[in-house]
Amino acid sequence: MSDSPDGDETSVSPQAAIDTETARERDTRIHDRTAGEVQEGIPFIGAGPGDPGLLTVTGRDLVESADLVVHAGSLVNSELLDAYCAEAEQVSSIGKDLEELVPLMRDAYEDGRRVVRLHSGDPAIYGAALEQMDALEHEGVPTYIVPGVTSAFAASATLRTQLTLNGVSNHVAFTRPQGKTLDPEDDHISEFVEMGDVTTCIYLGTHAVAETMDRLLDAGHDPDTPVTAVYHASWPDEDVIEGTIATIGDRVEAAGYRASALVMIGDAARKAGYERSYLYDGWANRDAEGEADD
Amino acid sequence: MSDSPDGDETSVSPQAAIDTETARERDTRIHDRTAGEVQEGIPFIGAGPGDPGLLTVTGRDLVESADLVVHAGSLVNSELLDAYCAEAEQVSSIGKDLEELVPLMRDAYEDGRRVVRLHSGDPAIYGAALEQMDALEHEGVPTYIVPGVTSAFAASATLRTQLTLNGVSNHVAFTRPQGKTLDPEDDHISEFVEMGDVTTCIYLGTHAVAETMDRLLDAGHDPDTPVTAVYHASWPDEDVIEGTIATIGDRVEAAGYRASALVMIGDAARKAGYERSYLYDGWANRDAEGEADD
Repeated sequence: MSDSPDGDETSVSPQAAIDTETARERDTRIHDRTAGEVQEGIPFIGAGPGDPGLLTVTGRDLVESADLVVHAGSLVNSELLDAYCAEAEQVSSIGKDLEELVPLMRDAYEDGRRVVRLHSGDPAIYGAALEQMDALEHEGVPTYIVPGVTSAFAASATLRTQLTLNGVSNHVAFTRPQGKTLDPEDDHISEFVEMGDVTTCIYLGTHAVAETMDRLLDAGHDPDTPVTAVYHASWPDEDVIEGTIATIGDRVEAAGYRASALVMIGDAARKAGYERSYLYDGWANRDAEGEADD
Repeated sequence: MSDSPDGDETSVSPQAAIDTETARERDTRIHDRTAGEVQEGIPFIGAGPGDPGLLTVTGRDLVESADLVVHAGSLVNSELLDAYCAEAEQVSSIGKDLEELVPLMRDAYEDGRRVVRLHSGDPAIYGAALEQMDALEHEGVPTYIVPGVTSAFAASATLRTQLTLNGVSNHVAFTRPQGKTLDPEDDHISEFVEMGDVTTCIYLGTHAVAETMDRLLDAGHDPDTPVTAVYHASWPDEDVIEGTIATIGDRVEAAGYRASALVMIGDAARKAGYERSYLYDGWANRDAEGEADD
């Protein structure tokens, strides 16, 4: 697909770099490298939901061999840092802007130190990996992504359910409510819930749960729609708070948590309505693999 | 939240087990155990997208110490099995129904063998873990889930992008098109695409790409909407096929793949329109952490 050489981004002017879509679509690494492959440059690693054991094998190897670990502060479980990189220099990115972080990582990399950037969850979901990667690439430092487990999957594991579930939920939405970073017209939570067979996973601060639910009530959604909040999924202080659109806001507020939670709207979190047909037909004639083509 | 003892499911009758919602909501393990914790019973492990290094550390430890690995056949990369459980008994679940799989796992577990069930990706997304778990629990065998990396995250890593991206995509949908297992009225792909700021990730067989795109054309969507298909993300034969709603079907067909692909609709796969404001303002005044509350 890509027969043009990758643009040498270290030599382009800032003006030229602004319009990089064409060059980026031809980034030969997209076709030459596979996800999970250890590559040249600084890896942007998904730390997973929190538990050190939910980091990937490759992510762990990279963190263990790093000299400098730039991590997402309190969003990454300190147990993970203690387990895998206690000897490395650790820098929290919280409160630091790109002007500070990018030269820090660039200089360390150019000094021959092994640098890793550790984001919480998976970097593809509500992370800010790409702007750092683009800035580093612009500075001549190669980067790449090592994917991770997102907190919604840990929450689902905790709840002993699936986000898609036969006869209950056919689709999953990862979403955020309106707020400082999202305009009201781009808030689709009500639309996802309206579809009826979507497990709506909201990544949000616990303080925003009540007002998000109030908007769903204003939009006419059934107050008894089940909602489950999982706080710090896979952390030692993980907690599960169950309720409904009408009740979850107060319950989360009463719990007093300050960090983000994963709020799931839909029946899948409780497996309500799940078709346990195997109980009737003796498990016969059922394909045990859901991922086969249809 | 849960002060009632967990129902002893080994002693309930099949009839009583059918109506288990109340008992399940009180499953004390939901509150007593955290995701990622190694528990008593058979773990249902997300193998990740394919690359052995994208299995979690805990998943790897469990697979390495297993006597019997029941895996998802060709959906799991054989390199992973070779790397971590070459000495174990390996059974593919493909073509086996629950009536065969459940007694196999139960008997091995009751014989004191260490049994693991390996699903592709994360078990919460288009897996069929839960019906097996429920059947095993009904037989008195405890089970639990170890989450994994889904192929959409590997695809995003390959494409060097994020599924959510400032100014481009605020939400992510994991979805499937209508087909044998989904009625046409439950196919929401057109609605997700219509929202405009959703990265729509479709898990589907490569043969179904063209007809899925034809339906989007019939629904009036812009034929030039970018669509990227990632085949076997993180596998050695990983491939990226880029196109549009109008062209991707033919391109995927021409590539001749037979397994499933991850098809992404939206600008995020190409980073088009991504706001690289740091190029203008010298990176100043930007929070480097996207997961902070707002």
